[in-house]
Amino acid sequence: EPSLEYELARRRVQTNVAEIWNYFSSELGKIRKSLGPNNADLEESIQQVLLQGAEHKRSLLSDMEHLRRVDGYEAWRHKEASELSDLVQRRLHHLQNPSDCANARKLVCKLNKGCGYGCQLHHVVYCFIVAYATERTLILKSRGWRYHKGGWEEVFKPVSDSCHDAGTANAYNWPGKPNTQVLVLPIIDSLMPRPPYLPLAVPEDLAPRLKRLHGDPIVWWVGQFLKYLLRPQTSTRDFLNSGMRNLGWQRPIVGVHVRRTDKVGTEAAFHSIEEYMTHVEDYYRTLEINGTSVVRRIFLASDDARVIEEARKKYPQYRIVGDPEVARMAAVSTRYTDTALNGIILDIHLLSMSDYLVCTFSSQVCRVAYEIMQTMYPNAADRFKSLDDIYYYGGQNPHNRRAVIAHKPRSHEDLQLKVGDLVSVAGNHWDGNSKGKNTRTNQGGLFPSFKVVDKVETAKLPVYNGV
Amino acid sequence: EPSLEYELARRRVQTNVAEIWNYFSSELGKIRKSLGPNNADLEESIQQVLLQGAEHKRSLLSDMEHLRRVDGYEAWRHKEASELSDLVQRRLHHLQNPSDCANARKLVCKLNKGCGYGCQLHHVVYCFIVAYATERTLILKSRGWRYHKGGWEEVFKPVSDSCHDAGTANAYNWPGKPNTQVLVLPIIDSLMPRPPYLPLAVPEDLAPRLKRLHGDPIVWWVGQFLKYLLRPQTSTRDFLNSGMRNLGWQRPIVGVHVRRTDKVGTEAAFHSIEEYMTHVEDYYRTLEINGTSVVRRIFLASDDARVIEEARKKYPQYRIVGDPEVARMAAVSTRYTDTALNGIILDIHLLSMSDYLVCTFSSQVCRVAYEIMQTMYPNAADRFKSLDDIYYYGGQNPHNRRAVIAHKPRSHEDLQLKVGDLVSVAGNHWDGNSKGKNTRTNQGGLFPSFKVVDKVETAKLPVYNGV
Ligand SMILES: Nc1nc2c(ncn2[C@@H]2O[C@H](COP(=O)(O)OP(=O)(O)O)[C@@H](O)[C@H]2O)c(=O)[nH]1
Ligand SMILES: Nc1nc2c(ncn2[C@@H]2O[C@H](COP(=O)(O)OP(=O)(O)O)[C@@H](O)[C@H]2O)c(=O)[nH]1
Repeated sequence: EPSLEYELARRRVQTNVAEIWNYFSSELGKIRKSLGPNNADLEESIQQVLLQGAEHKRSLLSDMEHLRRVDGYEAWRHKEASELSDLVQRRLHHLQNPSDCANARKLVCKLNKGCGYGCQLHHVVYCFIVAYATERTLILKSRGWRYHKGGWEEVFKPVSDSCHDAGTANAYNWPGKPNTQVLVLPIIDSLMPRPPYLPLAVPEDLAPRLKRLHGDPIVWWVGQFLKYLLRPQTSTRDFLNSGMRNLGWQRPIVGVHVRRTDKVGTEAAFHSIEEYMTHVEDYYRTLEINGTSVVRRIFLASDDARVIEEARKKYPQYRIVGDPEVARMAAVSTRYTDTALNGIILDIHLLSMSDYLVCTFSSQVCRVAYEIMQTMYPNAADRFKSLDDIYYYGGQNPHNRRAVIAHKPRSHEDLQLKVGDLVSVAGNHWDGNSKGKNTRTNQGGLFPSFKVVDKVETAKLPVYNGV
Repeated sequence: EPSLEYELARRRVQTNVAEIWNYFSSELGKIRKSLGPNNADLEESIQQVLLQGAEHKRSLLSDMEHLRRVDGYEAWRHKEASELSDLVQRRLHHLQNPSDCANARKLVCKLNKGCGYGCQLHHVVYCFIVAYATERTLILKSRGWRYHKGGWEEVFKPVSDSCHDAGTANAYNWPGKPNTQVLVLPIIDSLMPRPPYLPLAVPEDLAPRLKRLHGDPIVWWVGQFLKYLLRPQTSTRDFLNSGMRNLGWQRPIVGVHVRRTDKVGTEAAFHSIEEYMTHVEDYYRTLEINGTSVVRRIFLASDDARVIEEARKKYPQYRIVGDPEVARMAAVSTRYTDTALNGIILDIHLLSMSDYLVCTFSSQVCRVAYEIMQTMYPNAADRFKSLDDIYYYGGQNPHNRRAVIAHKPRSHEDLQLKVGDLVSVAGNHWDGNSKGKNTRTNQGGLFPSFKVVDKVETAKLPVYNGV
């Protein structure tokens, strides 16, 4: 078994190799831009340095990946991952199938959050976490679901085999009282008071194992709820399988999600297909660093069909898997239909089955795919490149990181850090720096990303003894 | 036990983190130099990038060091290192103490090579390697030694407890015949024909273990001969101990060797004390990366006493251990005296006992210290910074490295590399690039250091069954 310290050090080196490259490449880019005219030679040599530096970074990341595979702990990681997942799945099954349903304590969750499919999945996961924490059986009310009038159970297995009804018992709204039998949960945005076990917290009893196994335990934790929730009905399974067959699914493949239409300009910025493809290309070049040759495949999902056509035109050397029809149906006007639901289910499924994700984490579509991806590897925390946000869970508590290296501000934009300071992180600029607020000084600003480590939040939760 | 692949990957990441920093810092330095006037802002920001980049590199190296300590294999490394060393020392003892000395096959080595102490030690090691390879007892002729007329045995334990005399049997010069009882070896420079087991080769039977344990097996191998040879006589041991006491020896300490006088301008370039101290400072900042504070100590050895005075003046924040008297005696005119011998023995001893070496590998003094250092750690291959050469052994066979990443020449100065090509390496420019000759194309030139891995040369040697 690897020690916790070893796994942390190993993953930290991997992260920080990516960060040192982010830093140098961004700074070299700035230098190049700031050159006046008549500097063609210098521009050219900066371009050279960027090319060789990128290759060097790929070599380091490839070696770190190799190091993990040969360090003697890979079999343990797989075993630990499946044991942990089995444990959580057993607990969820137990919670959802109380022996005496009529008298069981219940939590009612309504699938009517006014938002997209990814957002609604996150809503259900949030309900399920509260159910787990309060030892209440989750009752999912989904009749009239905007994506499928017939309700959740026509698409996915019901969340319980045996206990579907909240009954006519007097239902109370959150927070209710300890002895309230049926509790109705509002959406996370209006939850009051907020319990301590909301994301990013993971259960205290599992935390030591999760910290060792996984680079971002909360993502794994969320993934486990999705694993339970998204068990497909037979018709859904058949549809997914035939979808994969029709698209000619083959790996390695990079999943690319390009979110456009209603999102752009409101909740996220526009990113050109070239930005995504730069990272795809980088991924493949890393795979090929030692001279092997890999067929370049991407699975491209979007809510804008033109993106798929544009990519096919601009990247003829790529096998671009994707269905413009699915993307067309994802447009706002047709989004909430059965056909569109099939489309987004298939798209998320295939994104999550990809080897690597390139997308914008501002979109819940990609975050959901990333969460599901965690159920397929011991640790897929670094199998993504987000063009904007770092991972977050809508409605989460502050995301804290701890300074392990002191920082003296380089300019007035910078944060001062002492070793041990807790920083509430707002985002990563992917240029070597992150933004956040030092909770000790209450000062906000930039700091080098490599100077902090994630603080895994934990909450004391039921331990489901004997399950 | 760690796998070979794991140890290679781990050490390679460590080396290449240093290399990527060499590369970026050198290129940024070049960009800064090439800026015209009126670029103060840009110069200032490049300076900033160099400072933060250095810190980032130190963080990565510190994490890699930590990773090694906590990967679960550190106890094995210590055990394997001492078992391997014991095995080789037993073999040497066996070789040097034949049961029937009168009829034993012998190799005569004369300690009269016209060069300095380090060079002479290397001469004896070379003789000893030939003795080991030919299963001949080494007879060291040292009467009238230029450093100590009384001979080797008055300073170090004799190379044999029981077999000192070549006898009057007919002695033949190299290569002799298979049945020649006494063979006389010339210096390596005039050895003809050259056997295949000269450095950089290590014994085939030990190679699998050495490759796994050590980052540079030949240095370990040479170190084992020095370990046997340099067993001090009681008077020498006392002198070394009192020397350490008088100097107030304490660790951590960085050993700095500044070779000047006759070497500069002939066999090596001049390097200012500032160049050495930059690397010393970097070493301490790496130790301090997580906020601990370390007393800055160096042990400074030189053949020029003024260097010690200069360093004391310029670096008052450092505890500078060193004896200007010893350095004064190391001047060419007094070098070959008993007092100077004591001085160089003490200096090499203390350099080898330091935590890290900063020096010029063009000097055999530092290379000897580095070789001896290997006997004190499972793997001290990366505990040095050389301002000029990479490690070499005078008179060695070509130093080959194998390309693991292809290289397309960036300019006419560059070498083309295909994966698998063998490159005979001439040196590392410590700017991300090395120089060498592609043995496939016979073309010489530069290539990125990270694209190759060392090829450990092996030679079929006696296996000393039952020893
Ligand atoms: N089929 C498909 N639908 C998409 C895609 N991107 C967005 N959509 C649709 O747009 C909705 C976006 O809402 P949501 O899932 O909450 O994600 P967000 O708005 O991007 O954070 C999705 O649920 C889909 O209905 C896509 O790549 N494929
Ligand atoms: N005591 C002392 N002697 C030195 C030092 N550097 C050089 N010398 C003397 O100069 C000689 C240099 O010859 P050699 O050992 O062959 O090394 P090289 O010439 O530097 O490759 C040494 O053997 C010493 O006699 C030093 O730092 N301390």
